[in-house]
Amino acid sequence: MSAPLVTLLTDFGTEDPYVGVMKGVMLARCPELRFVDLSHSIPPQDVELGGFWLERCRHWFPPGTIHLAVVDPGVGTQRSAVVARIDNQIFVGPHAGLLDRTLRVATSAELYVLQPEPLGLVLHSSTFHGRDLFGPVAAELAAGRLLPHQVGVPCQPSRACNISVAPPTPEGSVVFVDHFGNLVSDIDRTHLNSGHYHEVSLLDRCIPLCHTYADVAPGQLLALVSSFDTIEVAQRNGHAAHTLGVGRGTAIRLRTANP
Amino acid sequence: MSAPLVTLLTDFGTEDPYVGVMKGVMLARCPELRFVDLSHSIPPQDVELGGFWLERCRHWFPPGTIHLAVVDPGVGTQRSAVVARIDNQIFVGPHAGLLDRTLRVATSAELYVLQPEPLGLVLHSSTFHGRDLFGPVAAELAAGRLLPHQVGVPCQPSRACNISVAPPTPEGSVVFVDHFGNLVSDIDRTHLNSGHYHEVSLLDRCIPLCHTYADVAPGQLLALVSSFDTIEVAQRNGHAAHTLGVGRGTAIRLRTANP
Amino acid sequence: MSAPLVTLLTDFGTEDPYVGVMKGVMLARCPELRFVDLSHSIPPQDVELGGFWLERCRHWFPPGTIHLAVVDPGVGTQRSAVVARIDNQIFVGPHAGLLDRTLRVATSAELYVLQPEPLGLVLHSSTFHGRDLFGPVAAELAAGRLLPHQVGVPCQPSRACNISVAPPTPEGSVVFVDHFGNLVSDIDRTHLNSGHYHEVSLLDRCIPLCHTYADVAPGQLLALVSSFDTIEVAQRNGHAAHTLGVGRGTAIRLRTANP
Repeated sequence: MSAPLVTLLTDFGTEDPYVGVMKGVMLARCPELRFVDLSHSIPPQDVELGGFWLERCRHWFPPGTIHLAVVDPGVGTQRSAVVARIDNQIFVGPHAGLLDRTLRVATSAELYVLQPEPLGLVLHSSTFHGRDLFGPVAAELAAGRLLPHQVGVPCQPSRACNISVAPPTPEGSVVFVDHFGNLVSDIDRTHLNSGHYHEVSLLDRCIPLCHTYADVAPGQLLALVSSFDTIEVAQRNGHAAHTLGVGRGTAIRLRTANP
Repeated sequence: MSAPLVTLLTDFGTEDPYVGVMKGVMLARCPELRFVDLSHSIPPQDVELGGFWLERCRHWFPPGTIHLAVVDPGVGTQRSAVVARIDNQIFVGPHAGLLDRTLRVATSAELYVLQPEPLGLVLHSSTFHGRDLFGPVAAELAAGRLLPHQVGVPCQPSRACNISVAPPTPEGSVVFVDHFGNLVSDIDRTHLNSGHYHEVSLLDRCIPLCHTYADVAPGQLLALVSSFDTIEVAQRNGHAAHTLGVGRGTAIRLRTANP
Repeated sequence: MSAPLVTLLTDFGTEDPYVGVMKGVMLARCPELRFVDLSHSIPPQDVELGGFWLERCRHWFPPGTIHLAVVDPGVGTQRSAVVARIDNQIFVGPHAGLLDRTLRVATSAELYVLQPEPLGLVLHSSTFHGRDLFGPVAAELAAGRLLPHQVGVPCQPSRACNISVAPPTPEGSVVFVDHFGNLVSDIDRTHLNSGHYHEVSLLDRCIPLCHTYADVAPGQLLALVSSFDTIEVAQRNGHAAHTLGVGRGTAIRLRTANP
């Protein structure tokens, strides 16, 4: 059997040793564990972006992967901490909206509210639950000494989260600007299946939907399916966000081409 | 037996491949070795901050962990390189004050000055001892082919380092500003045991000592025990360093509340 | 046999989860694989710097190491993707000049142009071949299920790359500014073997060639052999790039001392 795999998604940054200490605590409990860092650069307390990434990234990891996601505006308050079994993977983290997007589209989901005391966990601090609570629980799950239903009390996913059942629409917004300056939206690629849409509108511009960057000349803007299956606006060999002077939150919409 | 664990703390940054190359050299000597990066963002040659983190982080790693810390203002000079067995872990790095804080509070310590020649190590460069000296030694220790007392000549910890025996006081300074803007000081939490102190003074402000961020309203300042057991000044849902316009080195003091 | 080692060199940055997802895909195919991150901070599409690092870093990794290098100005176009066996290691990545420096100095090289279809690889996106093509191929090579000559059609290294046969000269330029502000050039240290050169000229300054930083007083400029065996200009305890107001591309030349 291969070593258990734990992904990490936090807003801790990489300058301070917070992530390293969390890993140390986990390795002390499960030495054979393997880590993959998804990102530690989620803007502080930005549950929305953390949740977007979690949902988009999970598909690329093997069954049994444990996703430890700690973006925690409520650390130290009475907010709940949860363990979820979603499809064939496990998620551990604060109950702060991080899982909403994933629960909305999951095929199956079981959710448990963590009870630290019965698990014998003593919280060393009130400010670093990644190290004192979530990390240890993820390590115990990875080691197979704990199963999701043993961590606390079950709760209804639909009650636990703000799960909207509204169908996805061809309108959305820029969820983040990536390292290359591409504007990644939350509009799902499935809208393109109808064949109706040929353009994207952003501010007062119409931008053609293309297949890949090379479909336009260097310096031109284009829209395409991002590698995470949402619509993205890019500039070939350029930085679309700088060129357009826009960023996160900008509205974006699929359009049929003008007649 | 589980794979040997090596933590890394350097001022190398993560943009250039220095850290990666050091890891490659170590894996060539000890393929089963596992790394945890503590931080590579120590400001260049900032032995003081590196030493603070080393002392605060070591407790979170299992016995037998090897801490490789390379912050080295004296690279290429005749400064010593050391291997230390402190409590139940091993430390490898330049002798540049990095270990002072740890040696001051250690229960047991043995210190050895590295002799590269008897170990058969040829230094390829005079500028990258992390790769050419410290990394290889840490890997040999991890592989069990070398024991600390075999690396060179023993020396007295008290002679080796600037160990002050002054007891900790309820006055200190901001040691660093973390990713969230919190002002972390070097005042140990044990001062709070007396129950005398209820406030922190910083500049001309009095800031209440609380238990957790949520004890004050959003936007308010508070002092609390940091997750590394020193006193920290924070702003709930804010960036204390920006708000107060202060940074590293600012004096901070525990106070009894005004009558 | 020890776990296969894969180094990663990309221009993906570390803020977004691109690198993590690529690792997830690879671990799904080869769970025992081990990663070493060389750098993910190559400036976007900067094949020149990526190629410099690849050539300089490879020597520090054990035989059998797989170097996965993805700096890909042509993603989504018909540019080729290659697998190369160079000396005793394997290289995987886009054919975009990344390997030119290495091929120029290699003792032996075999180059194969990747054919994704016969390998059964379906490209999920046209924008993220690190995840969809290069990562999976590197993982299959690491797992031993694929050998380099099985990935596609052989091609002549000399035809494949812009291999100049001009001998290295004592003139060059600053290839990059490292984390410490040192100006690292591409002038090879072997030019110093003749004993002719005692200075470096940069702009209109003459800078003495020294052995190590400590050979000059704090604040002074010096030239020396960098830890990657090229000539470097540094400032002792300072940031040479800021002090001189120069950066990448600045001409630099070895000089005999003035009579």
